[in-house]
Amino acid sequence: MKKIKAGIVGGAGYTGGEMLRLLVNHPLVDIVFVNSNSNAGNLISDVHADLFGDTDLRFTSELSADIDVLFLCVGHGDAKKFLDVNPVAKEIKIIDLSQDFRLKANVGTDWVYGLPELNRDRIKNASFIANPGCFATCIQLGLLPLAAKGLIKGEVHINATTGSTGAGQSLSTTSHFSWRNNNLSVYKAFEHQHLNEIGESLSQLTPGFDQVLNFIPQRGDFTRGILAAMYLESDLTAEAAQKLYESYYADHVFTHVSKKNIDLKQVVNTNKGLIHVEKHGNKLFVVSIIDNLLKGASGQAVQNMNLMFGLPESEGLRLKAAAF
Amino acid sequence: MKKIKAGIVGGAGYTGGEMLRLLVNHPLVDIVFVNSNSNAGNLISDVHADLFGDTDLRFTSELSADIDVLFLCVGHGDAKKFLDVNPVAKEIKIIDLSQDFRLKANVGTDWVYGLPELNRDRIKNASFIANPGCFATCIQLGLLPLAAKGLIKGEVHINATTGSTGAGQSLSTTSHFSWRNNNLSVYKAFEHQHLNEIGESLSQLTPGFDQVLNFIPQRGDFTRGILAAMYLESDLTAEAAQKLYESYYADHVFTHVSKKNIDLKQVVNTNKGLIHVEKHGNKLFVVSIIDNLLKGASGQAVQNMNLMFGLPESEGLRLKAAAF
Amino acid sequence: MKKIKAGIVGGAGYTGGEMLRLLVNHPLVDIVFVNSNSNAGNLISDVHADLFGDTDLRFTSELSADIDVLFLCVGHGDAKKFLDVNPVAKEIKIIDLSQDFRLKANVGTDWVYGLPELNRDRIKNASFIANPGCFATCIQLGLLPLAAKGLIKGEVHINATTGSTGAGQSLSTTSHFSWRNNNLSVYKAFEHQHLNEIGESLSQLTPGFDQVLNFIPQRGDFTRGILAAMYLESDLTAEAAQKLYESYYADHVFTHVSKKNIDLKQVVNTNKGLIHVEKHGNKLFVVSIIDNLLKGASGQAVQNMNLMFGLPESEGLRLKAAAF
Amino acid sequence: MKKIKAGIVGGAGYTGGEMLRLLVNHPLVDIVFVNSNSNAGNLISDVHADLFGDTDLRFTSELSADIDVLFLCVGHGDAKKFLDVNPVAKEIKIIDLSQDFRLKANVGTDWVYGLPELNRDRIKNASFIANPGCFATCIQLGLLPLAAKGLIKGEVHINATTGSTGAGQSLSTTSHFSWRNNNLSVYKAFEHQHLNEIGESLSQLTPGFDQVLNFIPQRGDFTRGILAAMYLESDLTAEAAQKLYESYYADHVFTHVSKKNIDLKQVVNTNKGLIHVEKHGNKLFVVSIIDNLLKGASGQAVQNMNLMFGLPESEGLRLKAAAF
Repeated sequence: MKKIKAGIVGGAGYTGGEMLRLLVNHPLVDIVFVNSNSNAGNLISDVHADLFGDTDLRFTSELSADIDVLFLCVGHGDAKKFLDVNPVAKEIKIIDLSQDFRLKANVGTDWVYGLPELNRDRIKNASFIANPGCFATCIQLGLLPLAAKGLIKGEVHINATTGSTGAGQSLSTTSHFSWRNNNLSVYKAFEHQHLNEIGESLSQLTPGFDQVLNFIPQRGDFTRGILAAMYLESDLTAEAAQKLYESYYADHVFTHVSKKNIDLKQVVNTNKGLIHVEKHGNKLFVVSIIDNLLKGASGQAVQNMNLMFGLPESEGLRLKAAAF
Repeated sequence: MKKIKAGIVGGAGYTGGEMLRLLVNHPLVDIVFVNSNSNAGNLISDVHADLFGDTDLRFTSELSADIDVLFLCVGHGDAKKFLDVNPVAKEIKIIDLSQDFRLKANVGTDWVYGLPELNRDRIKNASFIANPGCFATCIQLGLLPLAAKGLIKGEVHINATTGSTGAGQSLSTTSHFSWRNNNLSVYKAFEHQHLNEIGESLSQLTPGFDQVLNFIPQRGDFTRGILAAMYLESDLTAEAAQKLYESYYADHVFTHVSKKNIDLKQVVNTNKGLIHVEKHGNKLFVVSIIDNLLKGASGQAVQNMNLMFGLPESEGLRLKAAAF
Repeated sequence: MKKIKAGIVGGAGYTGGEMLRLLVNHPLVDIVFVNSNSNAGNLISDVHADLFGDTDLRFTSELSADIDVLFLCVGHGDAKKFLDVNPVAKEIKIIDLSQDFRLKANVGTDWVYGLPELNRDRIKNASFIANPGCFATCIQLGLLPLAAKGLIKGEVHINATTGSTGAGQSLSTTSHFSWRNNNLSVYKAFEHQHLNEIGESLSQLTPGFDQVLNFIPQRGDFTRGILAAMYLESDLTAEAAQKLYESYYADHVFTHVSKKNIDLKQVVNTNKGLIHVEKHGNKLFVVSIIDNLLKGASGQAVQNMNLMFGLPESEGLRLKAAAF
Repeated sequence: MKKIKAGIVGGAGYTGGEMLRLLVNHPLVDIVFVNSNSNAGNLISDVHADLFGDTDLRFTSELSADIDVLFLCVGHGDAKKFLDVNPVAKEIKIIDLSQDFRLKANVGTDWVYGLPELNRDRIKNASFIANPGCFATCIQLGLLPLAAKGLIKGEVHINATTGSTGAGQSLSTTSHFSWRNNNLSVYKAFEHQHLNEIGESLSQLTPGFDQVLNFIPQRGDFTRGILAAMYLESDLTAEAAQKLYESYYADHVFTHVSKKNIDLKQVVNTNKGLIHVEKHGNKLFVVSIIDNLLKGASGQAVQNMNLMFGLPESEGLRLKAAAF
């Protein structure tokens, strides 16, 4: 089978590094270039030291048009700027990991929101993919089955805790080991920017959706993963809810519904999403977990690529869990 | 000043150890005995190794009646059993750290619920103190000012994450380092036993209180501390809420209201409680943090002792924060 | 290509779980049975929860003779006992992860010590493999190139720190999260059992080898990985040492020599070994890192299987590093 | 008793913060000013958030001459510069936490090296104290009893691992949580700058001392503490060594010799040093642990102040261990 030729822009950051970790082992991808202005000429393994021994690739400041797919792993705002300055040939598919093209309200329908559990068929035919945010992915996996049946009829209460890699590699007080180790804190309560993309997806499944999503994001003292704990009032029984979720995800290869309670490390270093549902009184309680850098970013980007190019959805994504 | 003579039962566990760490440095306390059946004869520093060099005390299987105060640091259910088998002279004050005597519904009014921010005057005159639970303390500190004014008029949404020491020193899957490190999980959603004592306290301040408290407890991958993130609908402005909380805690030496966002390590290894209040739309958002072993257990027990014996409330409790 | 039929005994422990994580994704292996007396009938994903969604296999108390290779993942001492009670047909290859068959002094030459960087050719033709210990693997990777040239001419000074998974899943004081988190300690100084197998390997390369290996093992507060820091007196220049190591490992696919300083997470969740060499005065300083559960246990076992069955050495072992 | 009036220069860094945590609770100290150019006017609790509720002090850009003791908590090199630019009245005692005045070879004998276990009597009469380095303190506590008897007769082998606070609050790759969590690495092998001050101290006790100290420093993934594992050839029996160490430290209130193995958290958040000695063959093995910010920096500075002003050595330093 002919290999997919891939280019990466912004390869020195966390999502760029994770993209490289995946693509160097992807059996059907050739990495054509890894663009990074700040690191041009340097070995990729000088920045992503875990790739030492796995690749001799170097960063380049150049771009090549001889690619099938372009991954944009730059900061929020920079993807749009990049494409403004560097027009890309029509036949090259683009997968953008920033938030620049996620909201239909802003960019219309040229860009498909790349959440396979919501839009798999449209992704298969898309040219441009806006890869979802990490919190947004985790929370949506917990709510999509309800939204698909119009069963979110009141406020939703969401508390989700993210690992430090969610904030990228920039140095800041809250990313300092001495501060973050053994610590926990809340930030952007009720005002996280991912609420917008979540809202659009729920509206897609439940036209006219206008329920309030109360979202408390937290900074955890771990590196990878997001756990979202959510609940809402619901008439569903525990059994009916379990059935609903299992049915919704029956043909999705990475998202599974566990009857047993779940913990974050079940998915760390994998592209999986795990969901657990409980009923308590009139509250339906949903726990959702993902690895923020994989299902929440670069893994999902590769999954989208697989879908766009007609490969098996899990090609290059059967990852060994870290487990510990 | 004559020193208080203290006895400890159950000195080999986590709350017993923390009691010892506090009392060996308390300038007005003499430790008369530290009872532990399983460790009788052993040096205290053999079990609580950080006390090596600080004390030559040994555990004993015996009890002495020549004490002023008895701390019960045994497991839930065992405090009641201990007192059934070992009647204590009337003039000896008792502070029980288990949950056995917390609920008025069960034990009536002989036992005072030992939360100084709720019951300081009653504690001063009490003979028997039921020391509050750790989650219960953290959550109540975030809700008491509202309850005191009858301002909890709808459901309260609470997500709180505890450190591993909250589960004591027993070995279990979820306390195994290989499992817990870098992990996060939910347990006992909506059904944590501390909801009962919280409910009683809120009813004390708001007679007839019957609002629903939705409580999602989480296991964090740190050792000390609880962070509770809570919200409810409220008409209060941000300013009014800030004023209400500051006013309520104005004369409480350990509980403070921060205008800035807070993080768990501000209180770790101290007896402090910190509260932060924000208003978002119609939601009043409250973050509350404590050290579960101190303000959430042994520190609060010493604070109660200080109050019962007429000492300054912070005697022996001006602790250097770990900070990192 | 016909798949290799594999059986696993002791599948519920840490090395058994890691074996399963590898083999469920190995393209040329079928898992025939996973034996565990304590868990017979249970889903494998009930014990190794990260495998939920990846396999529906169950543990069994039975054994099947219709296999090509048997992995023994039981405790030290139990492998020998198992084989005494359960004779295995001659044509079935055995890979034992315990220490029972590692020492030639005890078991003679029927069993080949399964360190590919030492014995690759012998492994290819072996029927029985004694898989090396984790500390032993890490330390040997740092010393083999010297031993191969007879260049260890004085005492070797070794300090190596292991993650918690090295101690397995049994619950103990030192595996309790509350104890181990943010902690560090030494154990078995100068007396670790792996010194014996290291000594045998060095003697294989340097006949008559009798230098003292001073080995201080430490318990780190991380889950995966071993970092060994070693030095000895040496006449080699830095350049000559670098060349020696690069040359020795030139055709070993998992072991690489980095000119830059290395850190543990470069290899976590991979089967790689990384080596870094420095010269300071008359001391040659060597740092060696591996993942204790992979190159130090189950990954190396799969590598050995690949060699024994004529597969590419890295089949099923191109693992994405956790990196964070 | 009249209180000691203290000034702090460089109060916004890690050692400055720890100094403040100690001095706000020190019963015999008044903090006159906390100088910080970058934070002048800000509340101290804005920078050291754990002090919220404990002090309303603000940083100032000014200095006051109305003090008894000045603590310099500035970076290496900046202490000397500060004193060049800001001459201090003769009657004001100075305790410098940088390395600027530690080496007699550089500064002569005006400055006393402030390690009470080495120089207690000289400290009592000193005007200027050079507070020891953290690694240097930890390692010296393990070697002083031997040096005092001239018993270091060969090379010493030292591996010591430090917490992240040892590197201060500056942001860097190796202080990034995503990098450091669950990681371990070596740095400055054989070349750490603290070797110089250690060498001077050993020479003070063993005139003509010229043995090689091989020192491998490591970065651990914890925040506080240093564990040093050291050994050398020795004729001492285990019993004689134990006796030697116990005797040397008999009248030192913070340093203790444990017959049992020790672990880092026994001393975290205290001013203690713990030592454990074992004999293996002809090697004497010594483990030494301290909290790098306390006994390794600010705690020792307060201990020196206590000695200089005739206070009990442990005044304000009876700290509750974090323990977990």
